[in-house]
Amino acid sequence: MTNWKEIDQKAKEWVKEAGEIIRKSFDSALSIQFKSNPNDLVTNMDKEIEQFLISRIQTTYPNHRILGEEGYGDDVTDLKGVVWIIDPIDGTMNFVHQQRNFAISIGIYEEGVGYIGLIYDVVHDELYHAFKGEGAYMNDIRLPKLDSVPIEEAIIGISPVWVTENKRIDHTKIIPIVKKVRGTRSYGSAAMECAYVASGRLDAYMTMRLAPWDFAAGLVLVNEVGGKATTLEGTELDLLSKNTFFIGESSLHKHLLEEYIQK
Amino acid sequence: MTNWKEIDQKAKEWVKEAGEIIRKSFDSALSIQFKSNPNDLVTNMDKEIEQFLISRIQTTYPNHRILGEEGYGDDVTDLKGVVWIIDPIDGTMNFVHQQRNFAISIGIYEEGVGYIGLIYDVVHDELYHAFKGEGAYMNDIRLPKLDSVPIEEAIIGISPVWVTENKRIDHTKIIPIVKKVRGTRSYGSAAMECAYVASGRLDAYMTMRLAPWDFAAGLVLVNEVGGKATTLEGTELDLLSKNTFFIGESSLHKHLLEEYIQK
Repeated sequence: MTNWKEIDQKAKEWVKEAGEIIRKSFDSALSIQFKSNPNDLVTNMDKEIEQFLISRIQTTYPNHRILGEEGYGDDVTDLKGVVWIIDPIDGTMNFVHQQRNFAISIGIYEEGVGYIGLIYDVVHDELYHAFKGEGAYMNDIRLPKLDSVPIEEAIIGISPVWVTENKRIDHTKIIPIVKKVRGTRSYGSAAMECAYVASGRLDAYMTMRLAPWDFAAGLVLVNEVGGKATTLEGTELDLLSKNTFFIGESSLHKHLLEEYIQK
Repeated sequence: MTNWKEIDQKAKEWVKEAGEIIRKSFDSALSIQFKSNPNDLVTNMDKEIEQFLISRIQTTYPNHRILGEEGYGDDVTDLKGVVWIIDPIDGTMNFVHQQRNFAISIGIYEEGVGYIGLIYDVVHDELYHAFKGEGAYMNDIRLPKLDSVPIEEAIIGISPVWVTENKRIDHTKIIPIVKKVRGTRSYGSAAMECAYVASGRLDAYMTMRLAPWDFAAGLVLVNEVGGKATTLEGTELDLLSKNTFFIGESSLHKHLLEEYIQK
């Protein structure tokens, strides 16, 4: 039987070690590579951290599989057994330009069920963590269940791109949301934005294209505080492909989906 | 003659003391009041901090005048003599919802010339400070002069509201900017966003209506790193009334103004 308590302890140890590597790197120069799209930066640090985590996992849990953003893990095409879903640095653009507002994201699943979610805001040493059925925390502060929020009082995470004409969503459905809510924010790291939803700092967050490693940890966290995460079609998220993504406090999630997005 | 070095030292002491009051308050419950608009929250803490700062200033510098957001200062209608321009909590909505991403902002001017700018990110204990002619710092790290940034590599601070139809600006001029830049962010505190521009974390920031206390400190900071701040018409900012606001790295500021906003 899978020893989840041990895995949880190890994962937390390793993510903290990885954070320490990143913090130390701020003194030395970064080298930056471009992926296929110039907006999709990748640094030596993304690669180094993914390789660090993979080596720890493979040594301790040779039977576990790893789905990682940088591609050093396994070729995962199903969710059988235990799968670690890893983004070594979520928010690489922030990492490069700001040296903050990025996170390490680790979600650990068995047979497609999320057991552990870790999102580590390295610079501020804030670890958002959740264990299936046992609640969510920021460091040692328990995150309360999310209270229902009327749209007029909601703060949502959304990029201006989605209220201008674009290929992924009918922006005329999003504009009324932006006009109705109390405020909008955009931080440039999906994992951080999921952690902000789980901790009530944002009431919802939506974006048009996320990979599993961007949201695998956030999904576990938000489940533990009674929130909801789906595609923008309201369907279940697929942990093996890219998705539209919509996470939020449950009643607000339902309201926005039914009265605005799917209307 | 005005002893600016002493004023600088006192102002830093007081802003740190004010930060300590705020940090301690996170344990006790906040009471929230609405200003005229429900989006314009004000807390007991905004008032308490403004009164704290005013009492310190008035005791030590009885001849200085104070322009403060909460209105406990003087009725300032000109910029003669030394004027302290204060926002006790810039980003009150973040303060209430997030307990982070807000700042204390203090700009100190004489005859309309900015001598001292302080923006204090209380939660992270990061004080952005500048002294006329002597550069800008985050804590004790010197902020370098801003390097020119091509629009394709720029990250700009902007709210989604300004790319939807609105009363303040022709949004069709802003949409092409959002589509062209590398990324957009929105943090919900103008003072923080000014500090981010001064420290190169954002390359520009624009918004449609700011009061002097929102930008008085940021203006001093950005001047010290060679950045530029104007209205969206490209004209000088007025420290006695509300303005449109556009701050950024100088060459990017010029490019966006000439090729997009004023075109």
